[in-house]
Amino acid sequence: MHRCQPPDAVVWPQNVEQVSQLAALCYGHGVPIIPFGTGTGVEGGVCAVQGGVCINLTHMDRILELNPDDFSVVVEPGVTRKALNAHLRDSGLWFPVDPGADASLCGMVATGASGTNAVHYGTMRDNVLNLEVVLPDGRLLHTAGPGRYFRKSAAGYNLTGLFVGSEGTLGLITAATLRLHPAPEAMVAATCAFPSIQAAVDSTVHILQAAVPVARIEFLDDVMMDACNRYSKLNCRVAPTLFLEFHGSEQALAEQVQRTEEITQHNGASHFSWAKNAEERSRLWAARHNAWYAALSLRPGSKGYSTDVCVPISRLPEILVQTKEDLKASGLTGTITGHVGDGNFHCILLVDPEDPEELLRVKAFAEQLGRRALALHGTCTGEHGIGLGKRQLLQEEVGAVGMETMRQLKAMLDPRGLMNPGKVL
Amino acid sequence: MHRCQPPDAVVWPQNVEQVSQLAALCYGHGVPIIPFGTGTGVEGGVCAVQGGVCINLTHMDRILELNPDDFSVVVEPGVTRKALNAHLRDSGLWFPVDPGADASLCGMVATGASGTNAVHYGTMRDNVLNLEVVLPDGRLLHTAGPGRYFRKSAAGYNLTGLFVGSEGTLGLITAATLRLHPAPEAMVAATCAFPSIQAAVDSTVHILQAAVPVARIEFLDDVMMDACNRYSKLNCRVAPTLFLEFHGSEQALAEQVQRTEEITQHNGASHFSWAKNAEERSRLWAARHNAWYAALSLRPGSKGYSTDVCVPISRLPEILVQTKEDLKASGLTGTITGHVGDGNFHCILLVDPEDPEELLRVKAFAEQLGRRALALHGTCTGEHGIGLGKRQLLQEEVGAVGMETMRQLKAMLDPRGLMNPGKVL
Ligand SMILES: Cc1cc2nc3c(=O)[nH]c(=O)nc-3n(C[C@H](O)[C@H](O)[C@H](O)COP(=O)(O)OP(=O)(O)OC[C@H]3O[C@@H](n4cnc5c(N)ncnc54)[C@H](O)[C@@H]3O)c2cc1C
Ligand SMILES: Cc1cc2nc3c(=O)[nH]c(=O)nc-3n(C[C@H](O)[C@H](O)[C@H](O)COP(=O)(O)OP(=O)(O)OC[C@H]3O[C@@H](n4cnc5c(N)ncnc54)[C@H](O)[C@@H]3O)c2cc1C
Repeated sequence: MHRCQPPDAVVWPQNVEQVSQLAALCYGHGVPIIPFGTGTGVEGGVCAVQGGVCINLTHMDRILELNPDDFSVVVEPGVTRKALNAHLRDSGLWFPVDPGADASLCGMVATGASGTNAVHYGTMRDNVLNLEVVLPDGRLLHTAGPGRYFRKSAAGYNLTGLFVGSEGTLGLITAATLRLHPAPEAMVAATCAFPSIQAAVDSTVHILQAAVPVARIEFLDDVMMDACNRYSKLNCRVAPTLFLEFHGSEQALAEQVQRTEEITQHNGASHFSWAKNAEERSRLWAARHNAWYAALSLRPGSKGYSTDVCVPISRLPEILVQTKEDLKASGLTGTITGHVGDGNFHCILLVDPEDPEELLRVKAFAEQLGRRALALHGTCTGEHGIGLGKRQLLQEEVGAVGMETMRQLKAMLDPRGLMNPGKVL
Repeated sequence: MHRCQPPDAVVWPQNVEQVSQLAALCYGHGVPIIPFGTGTGVEGGVCAVQGGVCINLTHMDRILELNPDDFSVVVEPGVTRKALNAHLRDSGLWFPVDPGADASLCGMVATGASGTNAVHYGTMRDNVLNLEVVLPDGRLLHTAGPGRYFRKSAAGYNLTGLFVGSEGTLGLITAATLRLHPAPEAMVAATCAFPSIQAAVDSTVHILQAAVPVARIEFLDDVMMDACNRYSKLNCRVAPTLFLEFHGSEQALAEQVQRTEEITQHNGASHFSWAKNAEERSRLWAARHNAWYAALSLRPGSKGYSTDVCVPISRLPEILVQTKEDLKASGLTGTITGHVGDGNFHCILLVDPEDPEELLRVKAFAEQLGRRALALHGTCTGEHGIGLGKRQLLQEEVGAVGMETMRQLKAMLDPRGLMNPGKVL
């Protein structure tokens, strides 16, 4: 969707002092600065729409400090989610936020990422304790104070929260202090097919209302399920489906499984299938994580674009049904998959990048879907961010005073408008 | 600690339009505006240090919208925590954040409150979905967009987070959209005495590491326990003590109880006592909630002042031991109670309000404790806020660039410095 525009130069700083000097230099000379994590972002966040210098942070990849008894870790911006979890392997802890892609953790901070298990562990917003940020003019800000890693605070304005989701437009994140969680003692996964989208969503609401601490609850529509069956050699029924995962002690899992089965059966589910051993479980979640590629394989040679709306859960059935109708009407090919416990879903649209007319149809479809979500009290982006393409929708979402306030924030921290220009606002 | 300074006038608006008109009027005339929730704040937040108009929001006390399937509710600023939970009684949902006092929910937003069960349900920061805010000049801001109540979003800058904990210095909160939780199916409480502070804190860390989903875990030092025994007619051993509560199904509780007992016994606990029926449980938590009054009763005629530091959990034993020594050395009377799962504790200091020398000693003690917390990577306030008295500590906590950024934020939203002046910054 976003045609890549290269920067004038790329630099690979080795440490925060270099980042600070680089920022000050660029800023002093009126040169745009584009922070780069691992480039897995899907909203064109690293496109250099006004040229400038791309600051690639992948060489700063040290884990600076681990405090297991305090459930916290400090990482440099080149550390990815998988690298961190590999490092934590024997600590009994893990970092759960999981966007599928092996993104950099600071990039995940920058986009306000979440993913499959936010329903239980929260999003990046809930799991960042402190940030080290190089401001556009080179000054160094510690959003919760230098070296602090307390679990909660009521001291002054929440600067940490301000930088989570700022998409590189307010400063460069050069270190993140993250909240860790105990690694689950045991896990069980399951798939479950439903007669209708409504039945799958109703089950989700009932599971949450029953306080079953589900760790993951993902929706796949029939087209997505079919594609995953083919791509990942699963054998699931082609129907609206939930993929579930539970974390806990063996005993706790047994109860969660039983309750969930009761709830889903009550809602008309069939083909309930539990994956108790690690291998089956991995296979299932590998399939879910490969949903993107499974979708692409439906139309070889195509590129994918993923929408990302999020609505109050009770409004999901209506928007999902509408979306499937819109898809049909538009003549586009698309699959639907969603973090249904959060009310967030993606429509993966397959498009021939050489067909400008089809690209326009994809764009129109995505905008219509964004507006449908807004009409249902939702947001145009649950986790991917605004980037380049959703700036108009953002205005419709937050209203005039909200936009003014965001513009004031941007002008306050980046008065020359050089931090990742053209994004968000 | 904070001698009350009355405003020049108090007004009781009935709706948001009136709040907006009042703000615009005051702002146009250069008159300070002081928002008032229920006045339970403990950091002098409602003192009119520069005179002005106190906007008392208690008459705006409607519950505007309840969406049970979406786990959300919209409340006006006069709605208190207890009023909301009474309203929710038959819905199967509740709002868990519990500062003990029956504070207004918007006041709790304003101070970034938490309390006894933040360890499981999070603080106000984690439980606010949207805010309606009257800005100082009377404009109306919806921090997540008008009428929106999605569970997560990555759309633009996090304005909601900016107003949580802003202590009335950036605007008047005229409605809050809050996240609700399923009411627990069953609950068990317990008390447990330890040979040392270290053993109590180690148990806490081990319980969290074992992922036992404890709903409340509160520390009381020997002096506090003794005071509660007398005031609330309990019969607990006078020792460092944990009060615990678990929420879940009967079966899940049995397992949590067993694991916790194993962990605490391993750490040398004695006198473990479970309160399984509702009456015993209420008695225990009433005693915990009356800790403030129990402390006051140790010295009839005295007033109380509560410190509020929060440190990484592993640093709790050292700061608690130091604090008890400081207390002794200062000659002051004080009890200690804490939300130990968050690393947050209060020292309730008893002071003769007519003795200026003693007031000075209390102030010096509180500042020393704040600095001890800062030296241990902590914060000077876990949940009460900065208010009037901790402005110097805030500067030491966040550093020069942090303070500059906070001052810029204040100047941006309140250029004439009329919103609750003299607080936070
Ligand atoms: C197959 C696939 C599946 C995905 N699934 C999900 C999902 O389920 N949930 C989800 O949330 N996302 C998902 N994503 C999107 C992507 O993984 C996230 O947006 C991720 O957070 C981007 O991280 P990154 O390090 O790759 O950032 P980049 O792509 O490098 O950058 C993204 C934005 O953040 C800024 N940025 C990056 N690093 C920094 C820094 N250190 N300081 C300041 N700004 C910075 C950039 O300027 C840019 O604006 C998926 C992506 C793919 C390819
Ligand atoms: C016995 C006792 C125990 C307590 N225990 C705890 C505890 O465990 N945890 C905890 O967090 N707190 C605790 N507190 C403190 C207090 O209950 C909280 O700070 C609470 O959030 C204050 O709410 P309020 O409505 O009383 O606010 P107020 O006292 O009326 O105001 C507090 C501040 O918020 C501002 N404010 C209030 N309402 C608004 C609004 N609508 N818009 C903008 N600004 C507003 C005021 O200007 C002021 O700065 C305790 C207090 C007492 C008396």
